[in-house]
Amino acid sequence: MKTTIGEIAELVGGTVSGGDSDGEIRGFASLEVAQQDQVSFFGNEKYAAQLGETAAGAVLTGTTEVKVPDGVALIHVENAIMAFDAIIRKYGVKPPAFTVGVSESAFVGADCTFDPDKISVSPNATLMDGVMIGKGSRIGANSVISNNATIGENCEIGPNVTVREGCIIGDNVIIHPGVVVGADGFGFEFAGGKHVKIEQLGIVRVENDVEIGANTSIDRARFGETVIGEGTKIDNLVQIGHNCVIGKHCIIVAQTGISGSTRIGNYVTLAAQCGVAGHLSLADQTTFGGRSGIISSVNEPGGTYFGYPARPLKEDRRQSMRIKQLGNLMSRVKALEAKLKDD
Amino acid sequence: MKTTIGEIAELVGGTVSGGDSDGEIRGFASLEVAQQDQVSFFGNEKYAAQLGETAAGAVLTGTTEVKVPDGVALIHVENAIMAFDAIIRKYGVKPPAFTVGVSESAFVGADCTFDPDKISVSPNATLMDGVMIGKGSRIGANSVISNNATIGENCEIGPNVTVREGCIIGDNVIIHPGVVVGADGFGFEFAGGKHVKIEQLGIVRVENDVEIGANTSIDRARFGETVIGEGTKIDNLVQIGHNCVIGKHCIIVAQTGISGSTRIGNYVTLAAQCGVAGHLSLADQTTFGGRSGIISSVNEPGGTYFGYPARPLKEDRRQSMRIKQLGNLMSRVKALEAKLKDD
Amino acid sequence: MKTTIGEIAELVGGTVSGGDSDGEIRGFASLEVAQQDQVSFFGNEKYAAQLGETAAGAVLTGTTEVKVPDGVALIHVENAIMAFDAIIRKYGVKPPAFTVGVSESAFVGADCTFDPDKISVSPNATLMDGVMIGKGSRIGANSVISNNATIGENCEIGPNVTVREGCIIGDNVIIHPGVVVGADGFGFEFAGGKHVKIEQLGIVRVENDVEIGANTSIDRARFGETVIGEGTKIDNLVQIGHNCVIGKHCIIVAQTGISGSTRIGNYVTLAAQCGVAGHLSLADQTTFGGRSGIISSVNEPGGTYFGYPARPLKEDRRQSMRIKQLGNLMSRVKALEAKLKDD
Repeated sequence: MKTTIGEIAELVGGTVSGGDSDGEIRGFASLEVAQQDQVSFFGNEKYAAQLGETAAGAVLTGTTEVKVPDGVALIHVENAIMAFDAIIRKYGVKPPAFTVGVSESAFVGADCTFDPDKISVSPNATLMDGVMIGKGSRIGANSVISNNATIGENCEIGPNVTVREGCIIGDNVIIHPGVVVGADGFGFEFAGGKHVKIEQLGIVRVENDVEIGANTSIDRARFGETVIGEGTKIDNLVQIGHNCVIGKHCIIVAQTGISGSTRIGNYVTLAAQCGVAGHLSLADQTTFGGRSGIISSVNEPGGTYFGYPARPLKEDRRQSMRIKQLGNLMSRVKALEAKLKDD
Repeated sequence: MKTTIGEIAELVGGTVSGGDSDGEIRGFASLEVAQQDQVSFFGNEKYAAQLGETAAGAVLTGTTEVKVPDGVALIHVENAIMAFDAIIRKYGVKPPAFTVGVSESAFVGADCTFDPDKISVSPNATLMDGVMIGKGSRIGANSVISNNATIGENCEIGPNVTVREGCIIGDNVIIHPGVVVGADGFGFEFAGGKHVKIEQLGIVRVENDVEIGANTSIDRARFGETVIGEGTKIDNLVQIGHNCVIGKHCIIVAQTGISGSTRIGNYVTLAAQCGVAGHLSLADQTTFGGRSGIISSVNEPGGTYFGYPARPLKEDRRQSMRIKQLGNLMSRVKALEAKLKDD
Repeated sequence: MKTTIGEIAELVGGTVSGGDSDGEIRGFASLEVAQQDQVSFFGNEKYAAQLGETAAGAVLTGTTEVKVPDGVALIHVENAIMAFDAIIRKYGVKPPAFTVGVSESAFVGADCTFDPDKISVSPNATLMDGVMIGKGSRIGANSVISNNATIGENCEIGPNVTVREGCIIGDNVIIHPGVVVGADGFGFEFAGGKHVKIEQLGIVRVENDVEIGANTSIDRARFGETVIGEGTKIDNLVQIGHNCVIGKHCIIVAQTGISGSTRIGNYVTLAAQCGVAGHLSLADQTTFGGRSGIISSVNEPGGTYFGYPARPLKEDRRQSMRIKQLGNLMSRVKALEAKLKDD
C-alpha cells in the first residue's frame, strides 16, 4: 500500500481538512497504534481520548467537532466505520485468487467426482478414492480429503486440513488450517486389563455456512453422525466429541471442549475454554461464560450461565460475592465469640 | 446402505413382528434420533421411554414385553446390542482398504528400512532418511516421518501426522491426524535478558497398543525419553511435556495438559481438561475428575480426586457443599449479631 | 550410542573411581531411571538419596564425598552438569543436517524470492506465489507457506506448518510442527438471524528469535497486525486471537488462550492453561500462575497473579485459606448458636 491522504479521501468520497493531502499513507491502523504514514478512523465517542493523542497521519471522521493533535489530517465522511472498511477491503491482505483446476502436484485417487474447470485443488493436496467436490470449492495445499468424503459447493478448505472417510461437508463451509474432521471418537471398553477399542464407524456431517477454526478437531460418530448445524461458527483448538449434535447458528469459542453424545440447541454461545460433559442437552439460545464447566443439562432456553459447575449468572455472581466477603464474615464471628466470652 | 427390515432380521438371525418386513432401511441410529427408514435397538431398560416414542422403522430387541408406537417393527434377537453392532460393522463407514506399497507421490529418503510389499505409504507422505517401518503399518497421506524415526508393526498413522527425528513408535499404535510426536520440549534458561534455548536432544518412545487423538502433541525429552506406556489411550488436543513418563493402560481425555518430567503410574485416568504440574508423580489406578488441577504428587494408589487444587473426591464435595451453604451461614451470623445487640 | 565408562571419562576430562572403565555405556538418563548401561550425573545435593540408590553404570560428579551403590563407577569432573551436557550434545538425537536446496518434490509457485543455494526446502513442502525466504532458513516437509508470506533468515519451520497469506516471520524463528500462523480471526456480526463473517484482512508479524510450539494457532488481524514480540517463547496448543500484540521476551505456556485485541507487555509469563479475555492490557514483567483466568487489565508492572478471576498471589492464597477454614467457621457459628440458646 502506497498512496496519499488525498487519494484516500477520494476513495471514500470524503473531504480533507487540517493536514497535507499529499501526505504519504502506507497503511491503516487503530487510533492507538497508527503511525504518521497510516490512516485511522474515529467511529465511537469512547475513543475521543485516543483521538486526541493519535500519531496517525489522517483520521476518518463522521463528526465535525473533533480534536486531533496538530498536523493530523481529518477526512470528513458520512460513516467513518464504513469508509475505513472500504480502505481495508481495497488494501488489506486478501486471500489468493481462485486458481481453477487441479495442481499437477496434487494427488487424485480413483472414482473422484468433480468438474476440474470449476474447482481449485492446491499443490500437494491429496484426494483419496471416491471423493466428491462441488463447484466453486477450493482445497488448500497439503490437505487430505479421505476416501468417499464429500465437499459441497463454494467451500474454502485451508492448507493442511484433514477430512476423513465418508464425512460430508455442506456448501459455503470454511475450514481453517490444521482442522481434523472425522478422527475416531474416544471409545473403549475395559476388558481383560486393557482398554479395547470400540470401532467408530459413523461420520461427521457439517451443514452449510459453517466455519471451523485452526487445529480444531471434530470426531466421527460411533455410528450415525456427529452433526455441526447450519451457520455455526467454531473457533480454534476446539474439541467436539463423537455423536455430538450441535445446533444451528451457534458460537463456540476457542479451546472449548464438548464431550461425546451431547446435544446443543440453536443459537447457543459457548465462550472460550468451556467444557461440556457428555450426554447432556443444552437448550436453544443459552449462553455460557468463559471457562464454564457444564456438567448437567440445561432445559430452559435463553439463560446465561457461568462457573464450574455452571449455574445461572446471577447465582454465580452472588456466590462469588459471598466468597469475597469471607474475611469479613470471619471477623464478625470472632467479634461475636469475644463478646460472648466477655459476657 | 439400502436394505429392508426383513434382510436386517436375516443378517442378525432375528424374527420380525408388528411391522412390514419389506420396509426400506437406509441407516441406523439411536432410538431418540432414528427416522422411519432407520433401524435402532433397545438394549437397556432405561431407554424404555425413548422406545415408546421412537420414529424408527424397526427396533432390535432381546426383550419380548416392549411397547413401541404403531407401525414400528420389532426384530427379536437374543442380544440387541450385539445384533446392532453386527449391523454397524456391516454398513458403517469403514477405514479404506490397506493398499500395499509406496505411493508414487510419496517421498522416500535414503537408507529407509521397510518391506514395500508389506506396508502402505499413502500419497504425499514424506519418509526422511533412515526411517524404519514394520510390516502391516500404514502411513497416512501427507504425514511426515522424520529422520531415523521408527514405526513398529501394524500401526495406523493417520494423515497429516508428524513424527520427529529418532522417535520410536511400537506395534499396533494408532495415531490420528494432526498429531505431533517429538517436537522440542519447552525449555529455556533466562540469561542476559533473554530466554536462551536448552537443546532438546532426547526422543519420544510410544509403546505397543497406544492410541493418540487428533492434534495432540507429545514433546521429545530434554535427554533420554518421554514415554507413553503400553495400552495407554490419549484423546484429542492433549499436551504432554518433555520427559514425562506415562504408565501403561492409562486414559487421558481431551485437552488435558501434563507438564514436563511428571511420572504417571499405570491405569491412571485423567478426565477432560485436567492440568498436571511438572515433576510430579501420580500413583497407579488413581482417577482425576474433569478439569482437575493437580499441583502435588499423589502417592497412594487407587483414589479419586477432583478440583483445583485436586483433592480427594469426598473432600472436594464437602467443600463445594460448604460454599453452597455460605448464604445460609451469613444469615445465621446476622441473626446472632441481632440477638446479641438485643440482649 | 555405544561406548565405555573410560571413553566417557575421556570425553569430559574426568577420572574414574570405584567401577570398571571398560563397562559398556549405551545411553544417559537421570539418576532415578538410569540403568546399568547408562551414565547419569549428580549435580544437586537434593538428589543425594537418588544417588544412593541409582542403578546407573556410572555417575558424573563434581563432589568427592558421595555414596553410591557398590559397583557404580564415579567419574570425577569439575562441573557434573556441564559434563553431562557435553555427553548429551555428542550422543543426543540431533536435528537432521541442513540439506541445501529445494527438494524436487516440493512445490514452488511463481515470483518466489530466495537463494536456492542458501535455503533448504524439504520434500512435499508448498511455497505459493510470491513467497520470500531468507538465507539459512529451512522449510519442513509438507509445510505450506501461502502467498506473499515472508520467512526471515536462519528460521526452522517444522513439518506440517501453515503460514498464511502475507504473514511476516522474522529471523531465527523456530516454528514447530502443526502450527498455524495467520488463520482468520474469529469475528462475526449477528444480522438477519445469522452470524455474518467480518473479513480478516490483516496479517501476523512474528519478530526475531521467537519460538512457537506444536499445534499452536495465531490468528491474523482484522486489519493491521497481530504481533509476537522479539524473543517471546510460546509453548504447544496455545491460542492467540486476532490483533493481539504480545511483547518481547514473554513466556506463554501450553494450552493458554489469549482473546482478540489484548496487549501484553514485555517479560510477561503466562503459565499453562491460562485464559486472557479480549481487549485487555497486561503490564511488563507480570506473572500469571497456571490456569489463571484474567478478565481485567493489569496496569502495575511486576506483580504475580493467580486464580479466576486472577488476583494478586497473596490475596488468592488468603482466600484459598479462608475457604479451607469454612468447616471450622461453621462449627464455631454452631457453637455460638448453641451457647446463645443455652443462655
